[in-house]
Amino acid sequence: MRRSTSILKVLAATGTVLAGVSALAQQAEPLAIREQGSLFAGGSVASTPGTYDNNAPGAEGQSLHGDHLYAFYQIPQDARSTPIVMLHGAMQSARSWETTPDGREGFQTLFLRKGYPVYLVDQPRRGRAGNSLEAATIEPTPLDQLFFDQFRLGIWPDYFEGVQFDQGPEALEQFLRAVTPNTGPYDPNVIADAMSALIDRTGPAILFTHSQGGGPGWLTAIRNEGVRAIVAYEPGSGFVFPEGEVPETMPSAAGPLAAESVPLEDFKKLTRFPILIYYGDNIPAEPTERRGEDNWRVRLDMARLWVEAVNRHGGDANLVHLPEIGITGNTHFPFSDLNNVQIAGHTAQFLAEKELD
Amino acid sequence: MRRSTSILKVLAATGTVLAGVSALAQQAEPLAIREQGSLFAGGSVASTPGTYDNNAPGAEGQSLHGDHLYAFYQIPQDARSTPIVMLHGAMQSARSWETTPDGREGFQTLFLRKGYPVYLVDQPRRGRAGNSLEAATIEPTPLDQLFFDQFRLGIWPDYFEGVQFDQGPEALEQFLRAVTPNTGPYDPNVIADAMSALIDRTGPAILFTHSQGGGPGWLTAIRNEGVRAIVAYEPGSGFVFPEGEVPETMPSAAGPLAAESVPLEDFKKLTRFPILIYYGDNIPAEPTERRGEDNWRVRLDMARLWVEAVNRHGGDANLVHLPEIGITGNTHFPFSDLNNVQIAGHTAQFLAEKELD
Repeated sequence: MRRSTSILKVLAATGTVLAGVSALAQQAEPLAIREQGSLFAGGSVASTPGTYDNNAPGAEGQSLHGDHLYAFYQIPQDARSTPIVMLHGAMQSARSWETTPDGREGFQTLFLRKGYPVYLVDQPRRGRAGNSLEAATIEPTPLDQLFFDQFRLGIWPDYFEGVQFDQGPEALEQFLRAVTPNTGPYDPNVIADAMSALIDRTGPAILFTHSQGGGPGWLTAIRNEGVRAIVAYEPGSGFVFPEGEVPETMPSAAGPLAAESVPLEDFKKLTRFPILIYYGDNIPAEPTERRGEDNWRVRLDMARLWVEAVNRHGGDANLVHLPEIGITGNTHFPFSDLNNVQIAGHTAQFLAEKELD
Repeated sequence: MRRSTSILKVLAATGTVLAGVSALAQQAEPLAIREQGSLFAGGSVASTPGTYDNNAPGAEGQSLHGDHLYAFYQIPQDARSTPIVMLHGAMQSARSWETTPDGREGFQTLFLRKGYPVYLVDQPRRGRAGNSLEAATIEPTPLDQLFFDQFRLGIWPDYFEGVQFDQGPEALEQFLRAVTPNTGPYDPNVIADAMSALIDRTGPAILFTHSQGGGPGWLTAIRNEGVRAIVAYEPGSGFVFPEGEVPETMPSAAGPLAAESVPLEDFKKLTRFPILIYYGDNIPAEPTERRGEDNWRVRLDMARLWVEAVNRHGGDANLVHLPEIGITGNTHFPFSDLNNVQIAGHTAQFLAEKELD
């Protein structure tokens, strides 16, 4: 692989990089934060038998803490009672929710401004929760162009017309540098265990999930009665159906999408609270050879079947395909798209309707 | 390795875990934050030759962004003009500065309260800046007991008498879960390149470093004139001396400590700004077989030689061995010890004396 000078270095020299951020900040009221900090929740401890020798340390008698999650929390002054816990997707970290690729406020700050305590998670074996009890090898793998397509910015190297993504080089660079690898095998049950431990600490909470985080989100609510609502932005995998009601695997240009089976008793736990699922734009209704788009066609189809199943069993699941309500151009990251203030407003209205404000 | 139930799970069930945090928060004034968010700085791009096939993506024609740093920033209302950039040490992340192991405010919040803009870094190949351009294998390695000794909490399993560390099980658990691995080879030059790119964006800044971060801190100041001061908490390696003035390698029970050589012209760049180095308690004056303590005996000795070298060349370097000024019990993490408010006050006074407030 060849290496080139970072675009950032060039832009930094011109002094233009943070101009957008500063301009925005001058218009907004300051945030009043009553309390902030971070914590680790859940996880396990692995121990090696033997006696620890302080002066010649080996593995014998030593332990390792791992498989926990990390969360940074902020509690605003005059906070609402129910916090929002935000869980990122594949190849991402809590950064997803902090700042948009073009440097504006992310959902972290937008929902703090709406009065919610906000907890941002790095899931087990990702980001600052990197200690895994299982080994991993990380290979530098070039995937920028695949992500451009798969996250529906466009068809590389062209952006979709009207896409809600800043088309300057800096935004794309920030977006691509947000990618961060797993430091252990991906395991939705390890994530859900840690999420449930977090909700034991926060008390009853609203859960926002993104993409791959959708699956662990449902599993968390099955484990913990403290989940009061889930808002899932473009859930990508881990759709759980009751045994005997699992839809057929759906083929796509990006590979097959299989649903998963859970006992009916567990599935019914997903009918106890309101659920809202969003999908953005440029998801075709009919099969296409274009891999990046076809990937989401089957996920949207599966989500529709899933919403039907939840409601068939007495739940309150809702699916918003944004173009159908006139909101166009959204990528796979609607919470950090150019219209993320509008998306946040839509979500906040849902929470208000469900009396979670 | 055996696995056991997390202590956290037990404590969470009793509802006692966050009591300390809440009690503190009720006493403090809310933080007024004008602006917050995160960014990536520095890094490189690796590209694979060939043509990208959108519908059958392989490595050909794809790129990878990596080796950048990640920083979360907060700018208080009525902020001072010079921000503080905080760089963690080995096996740690920006979490180091956020919260103490016993759940009180860390240096992030304490220095925001003092009016400084604060940037918290995850260095390249660590935490949320996980994308490395070099491969790595991460093995789960039991090191809890070694860290207990090496970070000078005590001699495992006994705490030092009077140590500034909460001796309840929850604080130790939070402390040990803050450990997070490298996702690529440790390279102080990659870190310093990214740190310099960050300071291009922040403008002139004060740098706080911890432990292994000390070395990249000096290298950052050699690269970038924007460094206005460095406060190094227990620098652990990477002491750079002018060619021809490098001290002999120092043997210790924890292995040898070698100094490093840089051109005199580069070294002199470290004489342009004030430097303050802290070391804590339980560092012996004479060699000992106790590995965890002897490790710091040679580092303190090396730091003393380094301060002399900087000042011999016209600089303003200062070393505070905390017990010598009557502050006792500090571990390797003085900024998150039980007396961290006192330590923050001492550092703030130094910045004021140097007219950096």
